[in-house]
Amino acid sequence: MTQIREFIHGGDYNPEQWLDHPEIIAKDFAYFKKAHINTITIGIFSWAKLELSEGEYNCDWLDEVFDRAEQQDMHVILATPSGARPRWVAEKYPEVLRVDQNGQRHLFGERHNHCYTSPAYRQKVQNIDRKLAERYGQRKSLILWHVSNEFGGQCYCDLCQAAFRKWVQDKYQTLDNLNQAYWATFWSHTYTSWNQVVAPSPRGDENLLGLNLDWHRFVSEQTIDFFEAEAQVLREVTPNIKITTNFMGGNPDDEHVFFDLDYQKFAQHVDVISWDSYPSWRSDAKTTTALAMNTAVMNDVMRSYKHANYMIMESTPSQVNWHPINRPKAPGMHRMGVLQEISHGANAINYFQLHQSRGSSEMYHGAVIGHDLRDDTRVFKEVTKVGENLISLQPALNTTARQAKVAIVYDYDNMWALSDVRNYAGETIKYWRTIQEQYQYFWEHDIPVEFISTQDDWSVYQLVIDPMHFLMSRDFANQLNEYVAQGGVLVGSYISGQVDERYLAYLGGWLKPLHEVYGIEPIETDTLYPSQLVGVADENNQTQAHDYTTIMELDTAEVLARYTSDWYADSPAVTMNSFGKGTAYYVGARFDQKYLATFYEKIVTDLQLTSVMPIEKTTTAVHVNRREDDTQTYYFVQNFADEAATITIKTPVIDILTGKEISVGKHQMVAYDGLVLVKKN
Amino acid sequence: MTQIREFIHGGDYNPEQWLDHPEIIAKDFAYFKKAHINTITIGIFSWAKLELSEGEYNCDWLDEVFDRAEQQDMHVILATPSGARPRWVAEKYPEVLRVDQNGQRHLFGERHNHCYTSPAYRQKVQNIDRKLAERYGQRKSLILWHVSNEFGGQCYCDLCQAAFRKWVQDKYQTLDNLNQAYWATFWSHTYTSWNQVVAPSPRGDENLLGLNLDWHRFVSEQTIDFFEAEAQVLREVTPNIKITTNFMGGNPDDEHVFFDLDYQKFAQHVDVISWDSYPSWRSDAKTTTALAMNTAVMNDVMRSYKHANYMIMESTPSQVNWHPINRPKAPGMHRMGVLQEISHGANAINYFQLHQSRGSSEMYHGAVIGHDLRDDTRVFKEVTKVGENLISLQPALNTTARQAKVAIVYDYDNMWALSDVRNYAGETIKYWRTIQEQYQYFWEHDIPVEFISTQDDWSVYQLVIDPMHFLMSRDFANQLNEYVAQGGVLVGSYISGQVDERYLAYLGGWLKPLHEVYGIEPIETDTLYPSQLVGVADENNQTQAHDYTTIMELDTAEVLARYTSDWYADSPAVTMNSFGKGTAYYVGARFDQKYLATFYEKIVTDLQLTSVMPIEKTTTAVHVNRREDDTQTYYFVQNFADEAATITIKTPVIDILTGKEISVGKHQMVAYDGLVLVKKN
Amino acid sequence: MTQIREFIHGGDYNPEQWLDHPEIIAKDFAYFKKAHINTITIGIFSWAKLELSEGEYNCDWLDEVFDRAEQQDMHVILATPSGARPRWVAEKYPEVLRVDQNGQRHLFGERHNHCYTSPAYRQKVQNIDRKLAERYGQRKSLILWHVSNEFGGQCYCDLCQAAFRKWVQDKYQTLDNLNQAYWATFWSHTYTSWNQVVAPSPRGDENLLGLNLDWHRFVSEQTIDFFEAEAQVLREVTPNIKITTNFMGGNPDDEHVFFDLDYQKFAQHVDVISWDSYPSWRSDAKTTTALAMNTAVMNDVMRSYKHANYMIMESTPSQVNWHPINRPKAPGMHRMGVLQEISHGANAINYFQLHQSRGSSEMYHGAVIGHDLRDDTRVFKEVTKVGENLISLQPALNTTARQAKVAIVYDYDNMWALSDVRNYAGETIKYWRTIQEQYQYFWEHDIPVEFISTQDDWSVYQLVIDPMHFLMSRDFANQLNEYVAQGGVLVGSYISGQVDERYLAYLGGWLKPLHEVYGIEPIETDTLYPSQLVGVADENNQTQAHDYTTIMELDTAEVLARYTSDWYADSPAVTMNSFGKGTAYYVGARFDQKYLATFYEKIVTDLQLTSVMPIEKTTTAVHVNRREDDTQTYYFVQNFADEAATITIKTPVIDILTGKEISVGKHQMVAYDGLVLVKKN
Repeated sequence: MTQIREFIHGGDYNPEQWLDHPEIIAKDFAYFKKAHINTITIGIFSWAKLELSEGEYNCDWLDEVFDRAEQQDMHVILATPSGARPRWVAEKYPEVLRVDQNGQRHLFGERHNHCYTSPAYRQKVQNIDRKLAERYGQRKSLILWHVSNEFGGQCYCDLCQAAFRKWVQDKYQTLDNLNQAYWATFWSHTYTSWNQVVAPSPRGDENLLGLNLDWHRFVSEQTIDFFEAEAQVLREVTPNIKITTNFMGGNPDDEHVFFDLDYQKFAQHVDVISWDSYPSWRSDAKTTTALAMNTAVMNDVMRSYKHANYMIMESTPSQVNWHPINRPKAPGMHRMGVLQEISHGANAINYFQLHQSRGSSEMYHGAVIGHDLRDDTRVFKEVTKVGENLISLQPALNTTARQAKVAIVYDYDNMWALSDVRNYAGETIKYWRTIQEQYQYFWEHDIPVEFISTQDDWSVYQLVIDPMHFLMSRDFANQLNEYVAQGGVLVGSYISGQVDERYLAYLGGWLKPLHEVYGIEPIETDTLYPSQLVGVADENNQTQAHDYTTIMELDTAEVLARYTSDWYADSPAVTMNSFGKGTAYYVGARFDQKYLATFYEKIVTDLQLTSVMPIEKTTTAVHVNRREDDTQTYYFVQNFADEAATITIKTPVIDILTGKEISVGKHQMVAYDGLVLVKKN
Repeated sequence: MTQIREFIHGGDYNPEQWLDHPEIIAKDFAYFKKAHINTITIGIFSWAKLELSEGEYNCDWLDEVFDRAEQQDMHVILATPSGARPRWVAEKYPEVLRVDQNGQRHLFGERHNHCYTSPAYRQKVQNIDRKLAERYGQRKSLILWHVSNEFGGQCYCDLCQAAFRKWVQDKYQTLDNLNQAYWATFWSHTYTSWNQVVAPSPRGDENLLGLNLDWHRFVSEQTIDFFEAEAQVLREVTPNIKITTNFMGGNPDDEHVFFDLDYQKFAQHVDVISWDSYPSWRSDAKTTTALAMNTAVMNDVMRSYKHANYMIMESTPSQVNWHPINRPKAPGMHRMGVLQEISHGANAINYFQLHQSRGSSEMYHGAVIGHDLRDDTRVFKEVTKVGENLISLQPALNTTARQAKVAIVYDYDNMWALSDVRNYAGETIKYWRTIQEQYQYFWEHDIPVEFISTQDDWSVYQLVIDPMHFLMSRDFANQLNEYVAQGGVLVGSYISGQVDERYLAYLGGWLKPLHEVYGIEPIETDTLYPSQLVGVADENNQTQAHDYTTIMELDTAEVLARYTSDWYADSPAVTMNSFGKGTAYYVGARFDQKYLATFYEKIVTDLQLTSVMPIEKTTTAVHVNRREDDTQTYYFVQNFADEAATITIKTPVIDILTGKEISVGKHQMVAYDGLVLVKKN
Repeated sequence: MTQIREFIHGGDYNPEQWLDHPEIIAKDFAYFKKAHINTITIGIFSWAKLELSEGEYNCDWLDEVFDRAEQQDMHVILATPSGARPRWVAEKYPEVLRVDQNGQRHLFGERHNHCYTSPAYRQKVQNIDRKLAERYGQRKSLILWHVSNEFGGQCYCDLCQAAFRKWVQDKYQTLDNLNQAYWATFWSHTYTSWNQVVAPSPRGDENLLGLNLDWHRFVSEQTIDFFEAEAQVLREVTPNIKITTNFMGGNPDDEHVFFDLDYQKFAQHVDVISWDSYPSWRSDAKTTTALAMNTAVMNDVMRSYKHANYMIMESTPSQVNWHPINRPKAPGMHRMGVLQEISHGANAINYFQLHQSRGSSEMYHGAVIGHDLRDDTRVFKEVTKVGENLISLQPALNTTARQAKVAIVYDYDNMWALSDVRNYAGETIKYWRTIQEQYQYFWEHDIPVEFISTQDDWSVYQLVIDPMHFLMSRDFANQLNEYVAQGGVLVGSYISGQVDERYLAYLGGWLKPLHEVYGIEPIETDTLYPSQLVGVADENNQTQAHDYTTIMELDTAEVLARYTSDWYADSPAVTMNSFGKGTAYYVGARFDQKYLATFYEKIVTDLQLTSVMPIEKTTTAVHVNRREDDTQTYYFVQNFADEAATITIKTPVIDILTGKEISVGKHQMVAYDGLVLVKKN
């Protein structure tokens, strides 16, 4: 976004719901001031109030909202309203409504569910976008475009089918190429005309793996194309206003990045990353600490898309209303979450919603101002406290998260391919959980991690972890090989390097660069039922593998651990291979966290990846993140446990949130507490 | 129904299935006599045999059935056949078939699944109804009209959509009112034309809470309207014959009154309540005693609709065939169930079915006469015994259940609203289970309870319990306030008084009359995961709350119990407020039965709600219900345990079922046994 | 098939996938030779490559495949390609695509999912079949026609509905007969026109039990009719080539024979039985021994269809890809499975697939030749070992499984009827599991069992077991009666003899021949919840019944065991009746395996059903099957445990797999090991 002068503290605001209650809007703005809310995000659900019927605009109320915001020196983030179209659009242009996989067109209803191909919809959206850009583009308060809302989902209408057909034809050029890529001879599915290309469907094909993968790619690209159709108008009219769209984090309980859209690609199209963060604090599924770790993953993922600071575009000050159970955050938890996000590189904390909707589905979703219209509630006070903290953090505004030396690879094509793999058991594949498990040791030891795509620059990383890389291009295998040859340390795992970008098996054994770099040849993969475990031992430890075990032939690698049970007892389970100037580890089986910690500890020690810090901790529930610039390091020290924790201050520091010095020695941090320390000069 | 001269003992009878077996019909009637069956319900599934094609009637066989019944002095309940239409109706008028939520019209099949709007269906039904009324209305045996069968379900055809649209327009008059009520500005759902009103659908809107609620109301009212279309013909031709339709009790396992239709409103349209009672005796889900309690609730609910005696219109003498597992009742259980129903105010016991259907889906549903055509089976003998008991009970025929001093409020609008609430967790909301939990203490202590709607007269009740009254009108809040001001005792609970009749949140805090009467202000509700518990303590007890805990501010109320854990430890959990001449209790959290018993025991003692009875019991599995008239009280003493129980007779009594005196002192009741005692003169 | 000169060792081969890789095809054939693969099954998925567009044939590549096979003296099994049609067929003739139960026509996709009624499809199939027969019918390598692939599924298109309507009319002749059979008067479903006959549907009728049963029959017969349309062409052009189609075994975990099609009837239409065998070895659901028992059942079932040797048409050398979890077989397991199949009468072992498909849904299904293209993998070596064993078994080629004296009855009409029964609880009905439980004692004691239909010849059996024969014709009841009268021993059970072929209850009590032969009258059936047990005791044993208990009246039968709990304690649970020259046992309740073993042991002892064998075993995990001809008995001794087992050789024998003598005395068999012994001369 446009360079900001302060941390953003704001959120979605819907004054169009209260136009007949001007006293409520007036009170809202007074409350914003009181709670140090400096930004409003408006327009997301406002289309019906902005364009009453086709071409009949009604922007006066929005003018007034801008006026009010500017009167108290607030920022405005303006949304394009394409995520929630008016009824008249659907009535006049039924093609804007999605068609489901069964071929049935939706009725008007819900939101962000338009056909992303429909020319009529793109036209209507561009019209209102242009109108908004022209009318508000010069407003001094306008700092950012918020394009649409939480893109996602799929459409199977004739327009999308035609666009997909064209996409496929453009990609493969000849039917022979297509038939080869989809291995269509299998089951006599040979295409003899481009017209036969149809999206996957439970009524048709669900098992053409190449087709399924291409459909994922197409949906992702077509959605980005829709975004670009909006962005193009905005860039034309307001070239100086940056553009974002709010990504989704999934519920951390889901243990998955957002699945539908390739955010690694989408990120290239936005100017700044923003996302909607809704961790399930206080659920019975995870401890606060475990959830904090998953939330850390998601924040690192979001920062990593552009390797830059990012925004929280939505979050709740208390509870959501769409989890199976919706507990309000406990006192202090909201501040804890905010400090964590800032510590990973967020420069903006926005809420959904500033004022609670009086009716409809999200009427009980948490908000800064509730139905009681009070400013003395616990929630309001905790929001105000966060506002104060963000002001205190002002000196850290232009810092960034400390550069990581450790990178974890993940890839959307691979994720989609793994989700569709037939033989390795849908139930246990757990790709994202595996990513999280690789991350855990580093988080517990305050070692920064960056998430990288197959297209990223690797030169800055000493350690690259590349788990379950099932679908891998030949180029990427070469890149791995080259990285290690040049001195990098690589960790790979079971179920890697099996299919190419078309979802066709590599023939004749493992890719040569992989065989070389790892010094082994995987031969079989045993896929275990959840109750079945296989013993593994290295020199010092005995453990048990679950879910997957690779049976491999050894070439140049050295064995670090061997299986101790089942018919492949005594064969290698974990190997290490010196290759060129570097080293490649192959983890052939799925291990528990304890074993992974032992495994990574050795590598971390070898590479000297830990730093001396002015704080020592006694529990992994306390986490230290750093934001830095050339002159200063800010240590975000947080207690993610439900009870107090002890830390030791080793050199004198100041907590910039309070401005107070913290002396050398032991200190107690209460549950959920957070400090932002700088060394005392 | 027309004043009856004896307890009804009868059931659904389908001689049209046996027209080619006159010897079977003859045997059936002989068996009826033997089993003291005095009533047959006929015509429910007979339309195809009564109207062979449009306008071609064939009533001779039914004439003969009436003749036979009258020859042995039996009553006849005649059903209108609208619940199961002939194939020719659907073939000629496809509009009578329902359309499902996905817009697909059903084929002919199953039963009671017609469109309740279709003018063609209403016309065909009125024709046959008129025919039946004209032909049989003067029959001396005819005692009651049984309109259709188990109304329920929904239709989404164009006719119903149009009717709903009109219903909405009539209600709201202006689009502004509609948009306000549905808070349609949210998600840009503003209606700009009445044509945009469409029923909720998974293809369209499922989250417009006001729309969802109105659809429930419409379906209920439109179904009643269909009933009225039938009733109108019957009232015109046979003004002296009363009219019922058979309500459903749900399976008591379901812990829910029938959900689809507002029976509290429907009850105003029938002359006498009748319902179909199918408790799951012998399942593994509940003890016999626990199930008996739930069955007691359902019988009290049915009596309460009109505060009058009612009928069991269907029940099984042995097993059903549509539970997941279908055990026959154990010996004595059938009589146990019948005596319980009578004790709550039932004056009629009818079976589905008198003679087992030889084929099709219900061919193994229990019946008085089975495929073996025997009259010496266990089932036949138990039915005969019930017949004898009903004759012995003749002196109690004109008594009614003892007037309750305790009332529990429930409300269909509230139930529908709660079923759709997003934030309070569908899994744990359990509205009906909460109703049952309030009832339990009173049942265990033989204290009569009445169930009341928001429209009922409250003057007769000393204690009113109003749990989870989430959707509450301002008028009703005033009524609560006034009730306590005038001396009533009120118990309210968590999640009450939050939205108005439109499903819009009340603004500015709790409704003033509620705040006043309870003397508190609820601030937040914590929604717990099933494994999470919060400690609560009062002076004498420690317990744990589950599912919901309210955090509240205290005004004039006194604290009875406080939380002892979580961040709101030490804040009030249960309060008592003296207001006017009465008292209002607020139960802020969900408690187990043990705590509720302690809570209600104090109130019951204060109000002196227990009576001196000639029986003392040693277990809550023994229940005593009373039916009374001005001169006599009949004590229905029943053992609902699977083993014997001891009771103590304190004054000499006579069991009118046996005519024998039972002496003062201890007596054993075998499992499932029942006595009907009067004090010896 | 044509008399073969050796055990078939082969499998599905799809060279059409590799036409642009002739070097791979060449290598494949070299590998076949190495692994003693003597047969290829081709053409199953080849239609798109054989008929490029309508009438445009392209058979050159297939000619070459035949040439290659014949060059190395291999057999060819040629498939008709109807199981996987080309896209152009569906594009030109949409009627070939199935319509689902909701009336929606499928898109092109997946496989074996054509409408089995469509005249257009039959015509296209017959054209290509004739072409193949004419071109390849005289090839010396051609040994068998493999018609289509794994027939199954249902179609609800207008053509099928019309065919069903005609089938129903042909069967019942008059609407009166139809209405009687479907008991259509119930729920007013009387048919007044044949046009009203529609297949069961969730949108229409799902509860007309007679209709449901007839639909199963129709689907089965219409599918056979489609098969016959193919077979007719083949028989005409190649009268000397035998015909099969590959039956399915279900996953043994499913505990069910294939449900959709009446294989007992279908078997009459094929020349040789072949089936696809995919046991879930190494799952966590069953021990290896328990699974081996279920696999034995399935092999005996397949042999029993024609009481003759049969073929394994598909199997995997390692893993499948469609189980929830797909473990490769452990070393030795593949050979174990093959020897078991041979021992039951299989003369052919075929794989799906010889060469792994490079892409699409089955790309990771196990294959002899994998993506690595290696011939030194474990799988390749185990397949080669099996090839060697099959050569060693050559002397046993013309033997057959030993004639059984014990028969178990099962029946498709009964299975379909039981699957639809409403009152006896879908969850616990478990018909096929009950069949397996009757089989277990005999398997554990190496006593051969044959599975028979109601149409089979019974004269060869000393013991007939007829469990849960719910739907039973009057003729069959007479047959049971006559069988016992003539000296047979019969075991019957709960829930038998209740409905006739129309699914109408028998009236007036149990069928007289059943009452006579069993000497009892069943009165009630108690249906227990899974956690509920009923005690049973005989003279020596105490046990507990689950799921079902029959309450019965005794006539001439003697009581073997009585209930000891519930209200029917002390009444008979198991009875024995001497009738004519034979004996009939009635097992009134469902027992565990321990009790069944006691029960059957006595009968087996009485009938002297065990044989003296040259081997003694110490565990039931070791199984001995025999194949015999007039001169020699081959003892297949297999250890189905995951650990070693001890056997005792009592007379000198030779293992023909190794040619070595095994001396008298104790010997160890390692896990999964198998011997094929003949007595030493």
